[in-house]
Amino acid sequence: MSLAHYRRELLPAIEQALRDAMAPANSVGHEALYGMLAYHLGWEGGKAKPRAAGKRIRPTLLLLTCAAAGGDWKQALPAAAAVELLHNFSLIHDDIQDGSQQRRGRLTLWAIHGIAQAINAGDAMFSLAHMSLEGLLKTTSRSIYVTAAGLLPRTSLHLTQGQYLDLSYENINDLSLVSYWPMIWGKTAMLIRACTQLGAAIAGATGRKLKAYMTFGEKLGLAYQVHDDLLGIWGDPKEMGKSAHSDLLSGKKSLPVLYALEQNGEFAKRWANGGVPQEQVKEFAQLLEVEGAKEFTRSEAARLTEESLHALAMAKPLAEAGAALTEFADELGRREV
Amino acid sequence: MSLAHYRRELLPAIEQALRDAMAPANSVGHEALYGMLAYHLGWEGGKAKPRAAGKRIRPTLLLLTCAAAGGDWKQALPAAAAVELLHNFSLIHDDIQDGSQQRRGRLTLWAIHGIAQAINAGDAMFSLAHMSLEGLLKTTSRSIYVTAAGLLPRTSLHLTQGQYLDLSYENINDLSLVSYWPMIWGKTAMLIRACTQLGAAIAGATGRKLKAYMTFGEKLGLAYQVHDDLLGIWGDPKEMGKSAHSDLLSGKKSLPVLYALEQNGEFAKRWANGGVPQEQVKEFAQLLEVEGAKEFTRSEAARLTEESLHALAMAKPLAEAGAALTEFADELGRREV
Repeated sequence: MSLAHYRRELLPAIEQALRDAMAPANSVGHEALYGMLAYHLGWEGGKAKPRAAGKRIRPTLLLLTCAAAGGDWKQALPAAAAVELLHNFSLIHDDIQDGSQQRRGRLTLWAIHGIAQAINAGDAMFSLAHMSLEGLLKTTSRSIYVTAAGLLPRTSLHLTQGQYLDLSYENINDLSLVSYWPMIWGKTAMLIRACTQLGAAIAGATGRKLKAYMTFGEKLGLAYQVHDDLLGIWGDPKEMGKSAHSDLLSGKKSLPVLYALEQNGEFAKRWANGGVPQEQVKEFAQLLEVEGAKEFTRSEAARLTEESLHALAMAKPLAEAGAALTEFADELGRREV
Repeated sequence: MSLAHYRRELLPAIEQALRDAMAPANSVGHEALYGMLAYHLGWEGGKAKPRAAGKRIRPTLLLLTCAAAGGDWKQALPAAAAVELLHNFSLIHDDIQDGSQQRRGRLTLWAIHGIAQAINAGDAMFSLAHMSLEGLLKTTSRSIYVTAAGLLPRTSLHLTQGQYLDLSYENINDLSLVSYWPMIWGKTAMLIRACTQLGAAIAGATGRKLKAYMTFGEKLGLAYQVHDDLLGIWGDPKEMGKSAHSDLLSGKKSLPVLYALEQNGEFAKRWANGGVPQEQVKEFAQLLEVEGAKEFTRSEAARLTEESLHALAMAKPLAEAGAALTEFADELGRREV
């Protein structure tokens, strides 16, 4: 089965698992809060589905890893729902923290319901992520459940540590390139690693095999974020659902920017004058390119994807699912663009 | 042992359990985020301890219940830390949602660090609450851990459902008295019930005995919130760390206010004119009293405390710890003021 074939099978199962995981919130008297969560997941409200739902990258990765490690991915569905809900909880809070009014072509929750209710909706989704894991008691073993119930909050602690750094970097002018890595390690890579770890563990992987799947996820998570930083400046605005060069406009200290700041060239000089005005955003992006930031970022994404695929090979995945997983990893981290 | 004796033994053990539970967040490179959490818990920063720490009501209740049900309360310490961290996570977010700049005589986290970082700090504490439960694997059994790991996120889902109602009530003018109960049931009573449930379960209580402890907690939680509403208007400002009649000034739809609005008398008429001006707050409080709202609230707290103590008696607690627990419940819910 190709990746496309797997996707056709996995995606509807993921949506159903998410609905199962969300069910405890859909109770009499609490429809309005449930509606906020369902809106955020792309199920309800204007312009719902499929784009508004996001790509379900994390649960897909978890299930594919489970299959590649020789497991029955259906057993992993409660964990797949949990990582997607954890991811979406963090997005709801991120949008407040960043002041983002748009996500996936629609208004964000806080833009509609205000900050107070959106914080609370995120907290509800956080709770549901943890509750979803209980499904593993039925599909797998108590021992797997205990592993997952310990891993999920540890992963979300890493998320908050990465997010702390990200938010604090906004106020630091002389940020160095090395500061970038612990931030995306916590903010992105740990959750991606949790996906491959859970998928492999549910398939019964232990010891060095499990470790290899974890390294695969960790490196892939780093690659994915680096590639995302590339798209944040040079991605197709239509495909991103954002304006062109949006990360430059928002002043985000992404990898290309940190690289260029260390070069201390023309870009760094103009950046220091305070922000990127809308009418100069194209020029700023060109400066980044001329000063090597685009090429550096691209090569970092490629290097990290290579490293992740090397770890995956070490794990000796099953031929068919392993090939689909390799294809998926290439898509996320881009060995070459 | 009297309640005072128990407290002298329990409180230092609770602080230590909290420090153990917080330890995973106190890692190299993440000291600043840890510092925010430690500040909120009253351990660091200006005017720290003991008042800034709060009263540790929930962990005390959990441990006392464990002792009263015949268990070794030391085994329950990881759960005690978890409920206190869950409570404090919700306080951090509550303060943002309510725009409260002060808590326990000090600035709130968001007032110091801004909304974005305070949301994130709350999320970190939420994660730590769940992680703390893992300690139960060492002190109790895997089966108890599984129960606790399922109960904690379910409790926090209830918290968010209650909080949703509370926030939405701000915009409803013709709110009826019955709306009050589902709000405080989710927002306050479910966490108090989780305390007595966990304490009793760790002591080995099952079946009707466990149910009785749960009813005890649920009723006590309702009583505690009703009594808190009484204090929010008529409590000693010095003891509360707030201005006099603070709940009236903030426009909170607490039980006395909802009662008086249903009476549709002078208070309701003046309230409908929009808010309580600082210079009229005393008059508004007197109107509430004249119209029976204070007496109603007091009697509701007394009734619910009675009901909770009735359930406690049904659970047949051990003599000594049971007496301390009764004393504690009286203090929280006030059988008579």
